[in-house]
Amino acid sequence: MKLLLNIACILILTGCVGQTTEKEDKEAILSVMKLQEKAWSNNDLEGFMQGYWKSDSLKFYGSKGLTLGWQQMLDNYKKGYPTKDHSGTLNFKINDISKIEKNSYWVMGEYHLTRKVGNADGVFMIIFKKINGTWKIVADTSS
Amino acid sequence: MKLLLNIACILILTGCVGQTTEKEDKEAILSVMKLQEKAWSNNDLEGFMQGYWKSDSLKFYGSKGLTLGWQQMLDNYKKGYPTKDHSGTLNFKINDISKIEKNSYWVMGEYHLTRKVGNADGVFMIIFKKINGTWKIVADTSS
Repeated sequence: MKLLLNIACILILTGCVGQTTEKEDKEAILSVMKLQEKAWSNNDLEGFMQGYWKSDSLKFYGSKGLTLGWQQMLDNYKKGYPTKDHSGTLNFKINDISKIEKNSYWVMGEYHLTRKVGNADGVFMIIFKKINGTWKIVADTSS
Repeated sequence: MKLLLNIACILILTGCVGQTTEKEDKEAILSVMKLQEKAWSNNDLEGFMQGYWKSDSLKFYGSKGLTLGWQQMLDNYKKGYPTKDHSGTLNFKINDISKIEKNSYWVMGEYHLTRKVGNADGVFMIIFKKINGTWKIVADTSS
């Protein structure tokens, strides 16, 4: 009986270690996006890309179709936004953030780029997943 | 020792019951979308909406912002697509389907409406979640 109780305790503890509340998860995700705004607005595109999963399986879906992989996505941004005049100042407006499963959330929102060469605005849905204890974007649809 | 082995067996079996492979999950998700194409193309908007989670927490994010809830989404479709001439024939083109966690996937794709009143095309990302054993769309971003 004692053995059974010990096993039950171990199982419960294993399940609880590292657990976070939904509020904590959402705060962590929003802080990733705050860092992205700051990095982008400094034309620090590598810094911006730290919010994304550094994997060839990262998916970006935009007006030009599907982009596969972290490096390709960074290369495209470097090409499209070579200077601070091109990248401008980025502001996100979050319209919804909802839990999918234990370690995944979606975020629906707007991006607003304020630039001398003309502003740019659009909407997105991104999927965040907790990978090795850190929230990373694994999928992004922007238009 | 025998007790431990028994417990281990029970845990493993409990974990395995009802498990499906990624291939099976993807086939099930695609079959939901096939039924949606068929229903929409018959102007059966309720039928089309069977692919979505029947909940006030369903989220649709489109050009007009965020729509909350299954019923509101159906009402909007009924208003926008009152007859078969408005809804036309729907074809999906799936560009990516990827697992998020155990019971969730995203799908990135294109919708193509063929209609007498003029065709309509766009892209989407939807999130499927297995709810009570059935795959349902819980979030949809279309543009």
